[in-house]
Amino acid sequence: MIVDVSQKILIVGLGLLGGSYARALKRFGFHISAITKEQSSIDYALREGLIDEGSTELDAKIIGSADLVIFALYPHVFVEWIEQNQNLLKSGAIITDVTGVKRSIVYKIQDILRDDVEFIAAHPMAGREVSGVENSTDKIFQGANYIVTPTNKNTDEAINTCLELGKLLGFSNVTTLSPEEHDEMIGFLSQLTHCIAITLMTCNDKEDMEKFTGDSFRDLTRIARINDQMWSELFVANKDALLEQMDLFIDKFNELKNMLQAEDIVGMRKMMRHSTERRALFDKK
Amino acid sequence: MIVDVSQKILIVGLGLLGGSYARALKRFGFHISAITKEQSSIDYALREGLIDEGSTELDAKIIGSADLVIFALYPHVFVEWIEQNQNLLKSGAIITDVTGVKRSIVYKIQDILRDDVEFIAAHPMAGREVSGVENSTDKIFQGANYIVTPTNKNTDEAINTCLELGKLLGFSNVTTLSPEEHDEMIGFLSQLTHCIAITLMTCNDKEDMEKFTGDSFRDLTRIARINDQMWSELFVANKDALLEQMDLFIDKFNELKNMLQAEDIVGMRKMMRHSTERRALFDKK
Repeated sequence: MIVDVSQKILIVGLGLLGGSYARALKRFGFHISAITKEQSSIDYALREGLIDEGSTELDAKIIGSADLVIFALYPHVFVEWIEQNQNLLKSGAIITDVTGVKRSIVYKIQDILRDDVEFIAAHPMAGREVSGVENSTDKIFQGANYIVTPTNKNTDEAINTCLELGKLLGFSNVTTLSPEEHDEMIGFLSQLTHCIAITLMTCNDKEDMEKFTGDSFRDLTRIARINDQMWSELFVANKDALLEQMDLFIDKFNELKNMLQAEDIVGMRKMMRHSTERRALFDKK
Repeated sequence: MIVDVSQKILIVGLGLLGGSYARALKRFGFHISAITKEQSSIDYALREGLIDEGSTELDAKIIGSADLVIFALYPHVFVEWIEQNQNLLKSGAIITDVTGVKRSIVYKIQDILRDDVEFIAAHPMAGREVSGVENSTDKIFQGANYIVTPTNKNTDEAINTCLELGKLLGFSNVTTLSPEEHDEMIGFLSQLTHCIAITLMTCNDKEDMEKFTGDSFRDLTRIARINDQMWSELFVANKDALLEQMDLFIDKFNELKNMLQAEDIVGMRKMMRHSTERRALFDKK
């Protein structure tokens, strides 16, 4: 199945990300439905024309007629949904997700899923510091990465469908990685980064520091405003990879601390030049 | 001496910051002179009308006629300058600086300085990622902090002159701290922050990471592009205070790591909520 506009797309979980998917896909004329917890989210999405139909119930007709199902749920809620409700899915349907960790989800879902439904995992690396369908916007996909993480259980057709979905959504970079490569990368670039921000924000509670704050400190702690339920779950779901990245960071930080202790200016300057050179790679192209 | 426009101001070291001082002060009609290493900097500043006169030599007339002297030099260069050339300063002159660390500079300079010249230290918390008088702009002072760090050797007159200078330059917040309070604050908000950024940038050299980088990682490493000569000197000049902040950070980071290891979701969520609450204080007002 390659995506065409006669197909029905179901979004399970109509929050910021699910709503943004709906918004982006509706422009192409797809039939979009949604299943979500809150009636107010359905009402908003219907009023704004983001979806054609929706329900807060497990509506068998809506679920059973969807060719492509996008799960925009917390990892454990996604797994529970499949365990309890996969019988409602249409035979031949392709399902995908938005989960920020992959190994702990992909193999589990593929193991328990019916043979006539295929799960192809994907991670849209996009978000905002606000939540809810009311804040959805497909602008968050511009300049962002969409990573498909196939396993040897996936067909080329499903992989291509998912890659095409990423492009339709408007992501600037649509690529594939193995679940293992994905989790290592995300452990470093995203999870370690959040660990650092929340540590910096909580390691010194001295009063009045905010009076003297400049942009550097603000930049490093912007993501210290964090959804504690989601991120603690994602950390645990990628525990081994994240612990490895945390160790790499601690080792290097201690190296710097020891150089400072020894007033090793040559060593510190070498590390700073390494940092400066490497940072240039990460500039926005 | 409270600053008035009939006074002569000398800037020693006409780089980004010295040039930005000249630019801001010239608007009020002060007579501004400069002593700096490169003739090209003097030429540029004369051409742009930032200064009235300047020299790459230790011009006794220029130095001896200045009522207020601003040293915008690397810390060790500033100390050497005073040691070798303070005889050239006008009797009754007030001198100030821009150094990013205070205890290691203020007491040393005040100790060795002639009795008829007064040093009142200040830290303009402003900068750019580019250098040189050609990149100078007084826009960098808007929204920024100017911190005067008096000691018991300072007169009210000199302190008030320096506070007034900060306001004339266009800083949004002009305050005083003791050298000790200043160095603790800067150790946390600025130096620790730079230590973290360069560590994150150098702790994992895996290839192709930049392909998947999002804004969070870019935000945390923007300052990983760093002037290695200046920052290594500033780190060493604030060694004890910075080591203390680094220890606070490592302790908290290890606390988070241990919670992850133990899958202590409750503990991690508590730390994340603390982080979220505390970050709200640091939003731009």
